[in-house]
Amino acid sequence: MKGKRTDLGTTQCGIARSLGVIGDWWSLLIIRDAFIGLEHFGEFHRSLGLARNILSTRLKKLVEHGIFRIEPDEDNASSHRYLLTERGKELYIVIMALCQWGENGCFAPDEKRYLMIDRKLGRPLAPLELRADDGRILGPDDFRHVSPQEWEGLELGRLEPE
Amino acid sequence: MKGKRTDLGTTQCGIARSLGVIGDWWSLLIIRDAFIGLEHFGEFHRSLGLARNILSTRLKKLVEHGIFRIEPDEDNASSHRYLLTERGKELYIVIMALCQWGENGCFAPDEKRYLMIDRKLGRPLAPLELRADDGRILGPDDFRHVSPQEWEGLELGRLEPE
Repeated sequence: MKGKRTDLGTTQCGIARSLGVIGDWWSLLIIRDAFIGLEHFGEFHRSLGLARNILSTRLKKLVEHGIFRIEPDEDNASSHRYLLTERGKELYIVIMALCQWGENGCFAPDEKRYLMIDRKLGRPLAPLELRADDGRILGPDDFRHVSPQEWEGLELGRLEPE
Repeated sequence: MKGKRTDLGTTQCGIARSLGVIGDWWSLLIIRDAFIGLEHFGEFHRSLGLARNILSTRLKKLVEHGIFRIEPDEDNASSHRYLLTERGKELYIVIMALCQWGENGCFAPDEKRYLMIDRKLGRPLAPLELRADDGRILGPDDFRHVSPQEWEGLELGRLEPE
């Protein structure tokens, strides 16, 4: 049967493929904490309150998948730091998409919440927008998935409209 | 301890809050399939190959959280359709962020893959960009999380730069 959990790494869909790497609730929160600036096992442990063995397994997987790299801690020879790789940092769009969706409907209007702001000027962030490569803004009904068979051999710009 | 799995709905972070609703690998694939056009239990079941009881539990949760609504199936009185609500459709940015990240590094260069295209003109999609509200493009090191205590009572535009 296609699509079984263990098969995700080989599916032809980018969404399934990325979920195979980071599609775990804890993994995404670990990555969020890394963007906030946490680097040490103990810091992730205190922030997330998950069992040490689960945290250890998740961090190991994220290192294996090239999301984190491990560096020695110059201040503490018995410790080390988990740092996002360039590949890991590219997840900031995923993190921000989740953040904006959560901010826009998972809180009561007057409920207190964390907020993401521009580090340089302290400005709020604009909502993420999906655009075609010619700049047109696209809504949730304006895109479709095409199979490798459908676009193979075609220049993309020449795919026929539906 | 803060941050325990069961506490997520009450955390002050939009990321954690949204993961509490959709931060499940299967849930995100069900939502992906709905964007592709699947509507029936049997279609999701065939596409994902997950156990019927797990699919049923996930769909029920997604309905409870307002991501899907259930409509009668006019073609088959014994069946019904799962349709994304407006709130569910707003997840398209999350789905596309996952898709683009997966497309850009989870495949070998010559590996076949599904691709998202603009439905109207068949154009490829542009990479999602994060911007501040004044239009500046922001990279992965250009934002930070501020706590409710930090921004409470401040007009956002007047938050001090770090």
